[in-house]
Amino acid sequence: MDIKVIAFDADDTLWVNEPYFRQTEERFCELLSGYLSRHDLERELLRIEIDNLALYGYGIKGFILSMIEAAMKITGDTLSIDIIKQIMDLGKQMLNQPIELLDGVEEVLESLKDKYRLVVATKGDLLDQERKLRKSGLSAYFHHIEIMSEKDDANYLKLLKHLDIQPSELLMIGNSLKSDILPVLNIGGYAVHVPYHITWAHEQIEDSIDNERFKSIERIKEVLELLK
Amino acid sequence: MDIKVIAFDADDTLWVNEPYFRQTEERFCELLSGYLSRHDLERELLRIEIDNLALYGYGIKGFILSMIEAAMKITGDTLSIDIIKQIMDLGKQMLNQPIELLDGVEEVLESLKDKYRLVVATKGDLLDQERKLRKSGLSAYFHHIEIMSEKDDANYLKLLKHLDIQPSELLMIGNSLKSDILPVLNIGGYAVHVPYHITWAHEQIEDSIDNERFKSIERIKEVLELLK
Repeated sequence: MDIKVIAFDADDTLWVNEPYFRQTEERFCELLSGYLSRHDLERELLRIEIDNLALYGYGIKGFILSMIEAAMKITGDTLSIDIIKQIMDLGKQMLNQPIELLDGVEEVLESLKDKYRLVVATKGDLLDQERKLRKSGLSAYFHHIEIMSEKDDANYLKLLKHLDIQPSELLMIGNSLKSDILPVLNIGGYAVHVPYHITWAHEQIEDSIDNERFKSIERIKEVLELLK
Repeated sequence: MDIKVIAFDADDTLWVNEPYFRQTEERFCELLSGYLSRHDLERELLRIEIDNLALYGYGIKGFILSMIEAAMKITGDTLSIDIIKQIMDLGKQMLNQPIELLDGVEEVLESLKDKYRLVVATKGDLLDQERKLRKSGLSAYFHHIEIMSEKDDANYLKLLKHLDIQPSELLMIGNSLKSDILPVLNIGGYAVHVPYHITWAHEQIEDSIDNERFKSIERIKEVLELLK
C-alpha cells in the first residue's frame, strides 16, 4: 500500500447525521398519525424522496420539500397549514442542529494528519456540508472538502484527477457500502467500511465484499492499526 | 497580463437564469394577489429570502421554501393547500427548465479553449448547477466546475489554491459586480463585467470601479478583443 490521500465520508462517519433524519421522520409520522399507519407513512415518504432524488438531490432542503409533498399526497389535500409550518420548522431545526462528533474521530485525524493528505468526500448540500464542517471544528485537519452530487465511479475518478493521484494512492473511509466503498473499489482504490448503526433505506445494499483492497472495521480508531 | 485560467460565472453569464426567478416571482404574486399589492408581496418575499440565505443558501430549493414561508406569513395562515401545491410545482418547473445559452458564449469558449484553462465558478446548488452545465452542452470546454457557497474573497483564494495559480493569472468573467468582480479584484485577479439586463435585488450594488485590472463590456464576445 502506498496511500497518499485518505478521504473521509462525513455524515455518520465523522459525525452523527442519520439519527436526525430518523427523528424528523418520526415527528413527521406523529403529525400525520391520523391518516395512515406509521409503516405506510414511512413507505410513502420514502417513495416520494426517491422519486425526487434526481430533481432535489441529497440533503435537508430536498427532504423538507419531499415531506411537504408527502403530507399533501397522504392527506388528500385536507392538510392544515399548521402541519406544513411544523414541517418547515423541523427542517430549520435540522439545519441548525449542533454537530456531534463520532467516537475516536479527532484522535484518528490527529494521528494521520502529518502522514497523509486528508480530505472530506461527501454528498449532500454544499452550504450545509460546509457549515457542518465549520461547526465540527475539524476544518484544519482537511486539505479540502469535496462535495459530490452522487458518489459514483465517475465522480470518484474526477476526485482522483483533482487530487492528482493514482487510484491505488486513495483510501476512502465511510459508513455506506453503496456510496463510500463499492465505487472506490471499482476504480481501483482502497476502502475501509466503518458501519454506522442506522443506514437510510436507500443506501442499504446486501453485499459481501471479497476484495483485497477492502477492510471492514467496527470503530474508526482501528484504521490506525490497518495503516501501520 | 499573463492569464492562465479564465473563470466564467454561470447563471446570466453563460445562460439565462434570473428571468426564470422573476417569472416565478410573478406567478407567486398572482397566486397571492388577493392579499397584498404586488410591490408589498415582492418586498415580503425578498425579506424572507434574505433572512433564509444563511440557512438555505442560493438556489431553487431554498427559493421554493422561502416562497412557501412567505405565502404562510402573508396570508396569516388562511392559505389554501392548493396554493402551496402550485408553489411546489413552480419550483419543479424551474428545476426542469431547459438551458438557453446567451449570445456568443459558444464562440467565445471555442476560441479560448486551447489557449487557457477554462473553469466555471458559480454559486448555487451543486446538483442543480451540474445538471445545468450538462444540459448546456458546454461541459467539454471546462476543466472543472467550482461551486462556491458564497463568492467572497476567501472562496476565490481557495479557488486559486485549488487551481495552483497566482492571483494575477486569473481572469473572472461575470454579470455580478458583487459576486464576480469586486472579490476577484480584491484578491489581485483580473475581472471583466458583462452586465445582464436583470439583476436580483440582493446582488445589486452601486459602484463605479476604477481599477486597471477591471473592464466592463457589453457582450461576452468583446472579451476576445480584450485578450488579443
